[in-house]
Amino acid sequence: MLHLPLVHFGFGSAAVLRHVLADVGVRQPLFITDAGVRGSGGLDYVLKAFGDSRVPIFDAVGEPPTFAAVDAAAGTYRAARCDGIVAVGGGSVIDTAKMASVLASQGGSTADYAGAAERITKPAAPLVVLPSTSGSGSEVSPSTGIHPAAGEPGVRTRAPRLMPVATICDPELTLTMPPRLTASAGLDALTHCIEGYLSPAGNPVVDSIALGGITRIAAHLERAVADGADRQAREAMMLGALEGGISIGKGLGPAHALATVFSHWPVAHGTLAALSLPPSLDLMERHVPGRMAAVAQALGLPAGQSANGFRSLLERLHERCGIPLTLRAAGCTDGDPAALARAAEASAVNLTSPYRPSIQEYEDMVSRIIG
Amino acid sequence: MLHLPLVHFGFGSAAVLRHVLADVGVRQPLFITDAGVRGSGGLDYVLKAFGDSRVPIFDAVGEPPTFAAVDAAAGTYRAARCDGIVAVGGGSVIDTAKMASVLASQGGSTADYAGAAERITKPAAPLVVLPSTSGSGSEVSPSTGIHPAAGEPGVRTRAPRLMPVATICDPELTLTMPPRLTASAGLDALTHCIEGYLSPAGNPVVDSIALGGITRIAAHLERAVADGADRQAREAMMLGALEGGISIGKGLGPAHALATVFSHWPVAHGTLAALSLPPSLDLMERHVPGRMAAVAQALGLPAGQSANGFRSLLERLHERCGIPLTLRAAGCTDGDPAALARAAEASAVNLTSPYRPSIQEYEDMVSRIIG
Repeated sequence: MLHLPLVHFGFGSAAVLRHVLADVGVRQPLFITDAGVRGSGGLDYVLKAFGDSRVPIFDAVGEPPTFAAVDAAAGTYRAARCDGIVAVGGGSVIDTAKMASVLASQGGSTADYAGAAERITKPAAPLVVLPSTSGSGSEVSPSTGIHPAAGEPGVRTRAPRLMPVATICDPELTLTMPPRLTASAGLDALTHCIEGYLSPAGNPVVDSIALGGITRIAAHLERAVADGADRQAREAMMLGALEGGISIGKGLGPAHALATVFSHWPVAHGTLAALSLPPSLDLMERHVPGRMAAVAQALGLPAGQSANGFRSLLERLHERCGIPLTLRAAGCTDGDPAALARAAEASAVNLTSPYRPSIQEYEDMVSRIIG
Repeated sequence: MLHLPLVHFGFGSAAVLRHVLADVGVRQPLFITDAGVRGSGGLDYVLKAFGDSRVPIFDAVGEPPTFAAVDAAAGTYRAARCDGIVAVGGGSVIDTAKMASVLASQGGSTADYAGAAERITKPAAPLVVLPSTSGSGSEVSPSTGIHPAAGEPGVRTRAPRLMPVATICDPELTLTMPPRLTASAGLDALTHCIEGYLSPAGNPVVDSIALGGITRIAAHLERAVADGADRQAREAMMLGALEGGISIGKGLGPAHALATVFSHWPVAHGTLAALSLPPSLDLMERHVPGRMAAVAQALGLPAGQSANGFRSLLERLHERCGIPLTLRAAGCTDGDPAALARAAEASAVNLTSPYRPSIQEYEDMVSRIIG
């Protein structure tokens, strides 16, 4: 019903990394990151707080994360005789580290485990994560999504053993996120909170957290986009992303079904989810008005206005940092709405949605999202 | 900032015990319980769900839990060559099992560790708890309180390694709680949510959970007292207790300082905390009206009326099941208000209170609580 890693939170909290690793018995951690986090100084910041920069590092995680990168990370782990993993990065880095932690303890290659959670039979190598973006929620979820190759759809795996043992949320690491990444990641977190809250699974503790996350993100996302150095806004967004990551434990809904079928287009996942949300909310306002009233209240909007309010938010973010308002505006026009609708309707996330759209409703939504 | 065990929740969830133990590698668990839970059939219910009744059992936990009982439980653990512990019971059983899990892995006796968290240097034996009351919140907290002997004040110990690895909240186990225990335990949980929420420590995720708990308990406590077989109310109270246990991670306040100094009197801890709350809330309504407005809203009361509303709740519970309205009514009259006030003012929980009462204010509160 509820499973969280040990969470440390706050500016400067990276300083507890050494202590956290000692507590779980890790002496030789492999640091997994990517070139962006290395270039921005994020990895240096963590290593300085850790007090040791002569550590094994794997930084060849790409976007999206691939089977090959996970296999290579596990190879580095073995070569350096590591006994635990520290992930410093966004969702792709964390997802890579999660699957690498399975390979590290159980052997084999990514292809053996991706989408086959039942094959994960041993405890994974201890994993501590320090997110550098505020969006994916992967820092508090037992899920990972890895792509067989860069151009192919991701394969999701969800298993209790993929949960990090500890998460250190230091908003300092997010200060260098550019506005458009801040917006797309923040929208991802907001969709997690909203779809998680709407999911009818009986988990009222998570419902409270999800509503808190919606309120927090609605109040701080535009501030964080407008001024990346706004430390209060960065802290709130990091917390909102954490709340979003907890919320998706309840389930997701149509916006994520749609984001997934559009995932072969080169648009950030958060933006895809955000573009998919307004038409989905239109349906929800008709079919589950009670739960939607709570969402509207948390968003600071009148009841029945969540979908419109979300569209207005997207328009303001479009003005501010170029978040696209349609997929066509992002250059994506080659979709077959009927085929995409069928794929969305077949998604497992519909099982946790409070209303299951028909194929026709999905096709209407697809057409509106493409624009 | 946030650390929870794996939580399973719901009627029938005891059935996952076998799976949860296997997942953490426990093959020979020691079951710790007390005579009450054994007599009510609660232990049998768990063993039946577990699928094996030929297990080592230690059932000599008293009220309050003592050093001697913990030491004896650890002796049984060693004699039966156990490799993990399952606690089935209320706060006293769970607290006993927590300290026994330390002795089981590190050796020594309770006196070596009680109040000396820094001496807990090894991971404790894996502990899975199944609460049989809805009150203490010990099932999701890293604290334990053990008494050197039955007539002596408890010694609190708080350490990350005292956290259970998993908590299975099966409301079926609470159906046999008599009305007065339901009331005192439920009031304990309510004070945890209220004082945790009021504590100014910056943990908004827990704030959301605490407000959820206040709302839930306010809506279901009297129903659970009136009809112990009301499964919906039992489920809500068990969830509220869990939320209270999470809330106290933020800190407590004057009501718990007062409950502690009264703890040598033979009145349930939850009742002591509940009697201490109205005068404390009077102070809070003057000094932190903003936070108290949120508490009042969650209680379903007008702003500024939390203390009065709480008194009314106590009066109704007095009518229904004999919860005392003053300590004098419970036969406790031998206190020295000035000495009790000094002891309360010296309590560490004042450090996490949004307003620190003076000794004079504490003395006024003590006099009102004694009545």
